[in-house]
Amino acid sequence: MKKKPRRAVLPLIAVHRESARPLHRQIYDSFRAMILERRLQPGQQIPSSRTLAEELGISRIPVLSAYGQLLAEGYVESRAGAGTFITASLPDEFVSAAAPLAESQASRPMVTEDEPWFRGSGAFSVGQLAYDHFPFRAWSDLVTRHARRVRTSSMNYSDAMGLKAFREVIADYLRTARAVQCEASQIMIVNGSQHALSLSAHVLLERESAVWIEEPGYEFLRAALTLSGCRMIPVPVDSEGLDVTAGIALGANARAAYVTPSHQYPLGVTMSAARRLQLLEWAQKSGAWIVEDDYDSEYRYESMPIASLQGLDRGSRVIYIGTFSKTLFPSLRLGYMVIPAGLVDRFAAVRKATDLCPPHLYQAALADFMHEGHFARHIRKTRLLYAGRRSALVEALRNEFGGEIEILGAAAGMHLVVTLPPGFSDREIALRAAEEGLRLWPLSTSYAGAEVRQGFILGFGSTKAEEMAAQVRRLRLAIHGVGGHQKRSFRSFGRV
Amino acid sequence: MKKKPRRAVLPLIAVHRESARPLHRQIYDSFRAMILERRLQPGQQIPSSRTLAEELGISRIPVLSAYGQLLAEGYVESRAGAGTFITASLPDEFVSAAAPLAESQASRPMVTEDEPWFRGSGAFSVGQLAYDHFPFRAWSDLVTRHARRVRTSSMNYSDAMGLKAFREVIADYLRTARAVQCEASQIMIVNGSQHALSLSAHVLLERESAVWIEEPGYEFLRAALTLSGCRMIPVPVDSEGLDVTAGIALGANARAAYVTPSHQYPLGVTMSAARRLQLLEWAQKSGAWIVEDDYDSEYRYESMPIASLQGLDRGSRVIYIGTFSKTLFPSLRLGYMVIPAGLVDRFAAVRKATDLCPPHLYQAALADFMHEGHFARHIRKTRLLYAGRRSALVEALRNEFGGEIEILGAAAGMHLVVTLPPGFSDREIALRAAEEGLRLWPLSTSYAGAEVRQGFILGFGSTKAEEMAAQVRRLRLAIHGVGGHQKRSFRSFGRV
Repeated sequence: MKKKPRRAVLPLIAVHRESARPLHRQIYDSFRAMILERRLQPGQQIPSSRTLAEELGISRIPVLSAYGQLLAEGYVESRAGAGTFITASLPDEFVSAAAPLAESQASRPMVTEDEPWFRGSGAFSVGQLAYDHFPFRAWSDLVTRHARRVRTSSMNYSDAMGLKAFREVIADYLRTARAVQCEASQIMIVNGSQHALSLSAHVLLERESAVWIEEPGYEFLRAALTLSGCRMIPVPVDSEGLDVTAGIALGANARAAYVTPSHQYPLGVTMSAARRLQLLEWAQKSGAWIVEDDYDSEYRYESMPIASLQGLDRGSRVIYIGTFSKTLFPSLRLGYMVIPAGLVDRFAAVRKATDLCPPHLYQAALADFMHEGHFARHIRKTRLLYAGRRSALVEALRNEFGGEIEILGAAAGMHLVVTLPPGFSDREIALRAAEEGLRLWPLSTSYAGAEVRQGFILGFGSTKAEEMAAQVRRLRLAIHGVGGHQKRSFRSFGRV
Repeated sequence: MKKKPRRAVLPLIAVHRESARPLHRQIYDSFRAMILERRLQPGQQIPSSRTLAEELGISRIPVLSAYGQLLAEGYVESRAGAGTFITASLPDEFVSAAAPLAESQASRPMVTEDEPWFRGSGAFSVGQLAYDHFPFRAWSDLVTRHARRVRTSSMNYSDAMGLKAFREVIADYLRTARAVQCEASQIMIVNGSQHALSLSAHVLLERESAVWIEEPGYEFLRAALTLSGCRMIPVPVDSEGLDVTAGIALGANARAAYVTPSHQYPLGVTMSAARRLQLLEWAQKSGAWIVEDDYDSEYRYESMPIASLQGLDRGSRVIYIGTFSKTLFPSLRLGYMVIPAGLVDRFAAVRKATDLCPPHLYQAALADFMHEGHFARHIRKTRLLYAGRRSALVEALRNEFGGEIEILGAAAGMHLVVTLPPGFSDREIALRAAEEGLRLWPLSTSYAGAEVRQGFILGFGSTKAEEMAAQVRRLRLAIHGVGGHQKRSFRSFGRV
């Protein structure tokens, strides 16, 4: 039912030019706060960017930037010809339409296959970065500096949570860049995000605990959870992210929900503000935990990085996970988690029991790398680089396939998804393509349930923009090479 | 019942002067093989070292060295005035006298205490090394060399098992120095031995699986096993190591046995050859697994390093664990496990699910460090150093305490145990001593059951030989400072 928009009143927003916070951020923060505190009601219209800019006596650019961000995060919605409105479904009136999937079996096999998309590198490999753009001189100088510094404290066992100086610089970064609420004492350094997923399962779950996972979702999360003996409940993901209403219908008493709200893996959806609040509300009411895997949110191309779900949490229900595998390089095996204060001791105890503490050298070097600004510079530089690679891939896919395929999740990260029409087997095509040196990760591997979509998760991190068109032509040949029948059915099929 | 010794016949031993294997090793190997193949029978006398040396036409030194080694490992025993004999209890006739302990509860709390003996360093800290003797120049040059070498393969995710070149050099080392039977393909690089214990529990155990642990034993092993939900059965340790007969009586159908045969933690006993064979036989018959934690066997002072239990195993029942935390430094977080070929895939799958793969840099640097001979040189150098520190500690303890305390396990490693007479609380003394900067690890923390011995695990790795007497005087003051009653009872109590 469409509501008639109310007239837009000017919200009470003050901006300060002399503030360290940029204008667009001040505007964004003000709106977000008013929406969350219900001072702006669902369905309420907000002023046009032009009106607000005039009222505030500032240029229109920061207002457009703030509105774009609010739109991307789902706090506001745009209605053609009518204006911009606080999202109507925010937060309780939301009704899900998606059909729930059957529960998965508790003991699904772990990822043990040695299939080609796991191996080596090549065009479209997922998780591959532009290693040649890494500032290795600055990095190796720091590593060398710390390798030469011989002190008992740097050679000895350390705190299970990690090196203090490193945790402090990460806390600063997360508060500033990701709107995460944290103190250094809540941060645990881990051996990459997979380690964090595994540790969280140890602490939060017991055998037979019900756990929401995203469907489709991250294959290796299922592997980590399988070890705990928990019961996974695949909850469908739609265009707003995990369908919380469906989750409640499938298992309201779940112990935890594992989500990727900034850039859903693999589909690339950003979880809407409505869903975020609904998820937090459910967790708060039912005493459940939310594990937010924020694996690649540094790279966002169509709006500013999305604020973390953790930053919205007022009930300390969120465990936040981040990694340096996407921003620096994976063989560092360094990531971090932000743990609610009340759980820190339990996480530290499990860490001691499983591998005592993280290694020293990389922590010390990376603390300096961040402190001296190399990290922020590298992110800025590579964000432009990956944006160019992404655009080149999207353009090449459009040129080569037209409307034949659907492209999903290209707004962030270093991969996107293309879906295939029915009748195609993504595994078959991927096996064939591997012989040609293309590493296509079949989308179907991301599904825990029986209803799967066929397609590919295409990494674009390690492929130069100018090579993209040629690689996409190879992709097209690989797809069309798989039998005449499939070729015909593909040709005749439009966009799904 | 004492058997009358048979007359010593000369075993069929051939030595080759031109062989790369030293003479003492050839003699040792020959005897060991003949004992294991029953060509030399339990109770059978072997020739005197003088006789054998004469027969072989070699000097007596290598014969004495081989005999010393066979004695240390329990293959032979010396009877005063009668000569040297193949151990009578080898392998089936062994009868245990030790009383079995009650089973521990499945859900003992994990190590969460923040007690002073866990913290910092100080005289007698356990696990502290002579960091100032580490060849940091050679090491940091290698780290620098690899940090500057930027290749996709060194920045990317790697094999879950670890870097191939590193695994190969470790396999060489283990075959040569530890008599471990292995190929590089069986070696997994882990984040220290605690990680290996934890991974093995994931792969081998299920909830409620019965598992033998040594009593007393390694506190952090219990923490790792607790996470698996297994049922721990503490099996008493006597002067020959884990009492296998007692273990069979307590739980013959256990899924696994966790042992430290080279240098039992904490008591320092070397598991006898009879027990080793009995343990392997039990595992082979019952389909159980043996996890051999060989955490500090590089440092052995009274004989050559003891050959591994894994090297005796003909049934692929042993998972062998080693670490660089004792030979290089703990903040490396590097260790390795040797996995029976049939279990490699399962271990790799669990590794992927828990933290994907080990970090790259240290592996690459340490592979070169070993390949270029720095590792072997460092072991040789520090073995002498620690031998001196150990002697100084033993001497100081004898001078200061006389027969009042018992010293255990000083033949190897970087710690020894002193036991206290009844009436003393090792925790109370340790808490008091911590205020004085002494880090005394209470022996009682090593017991899973209720029957505990009071004493201290004293690390001597980081204390200079010339400072040992002063530190032991401080130890004496700390012990005697705890109340007049205890002081008197200590004074009046002899060696236990």
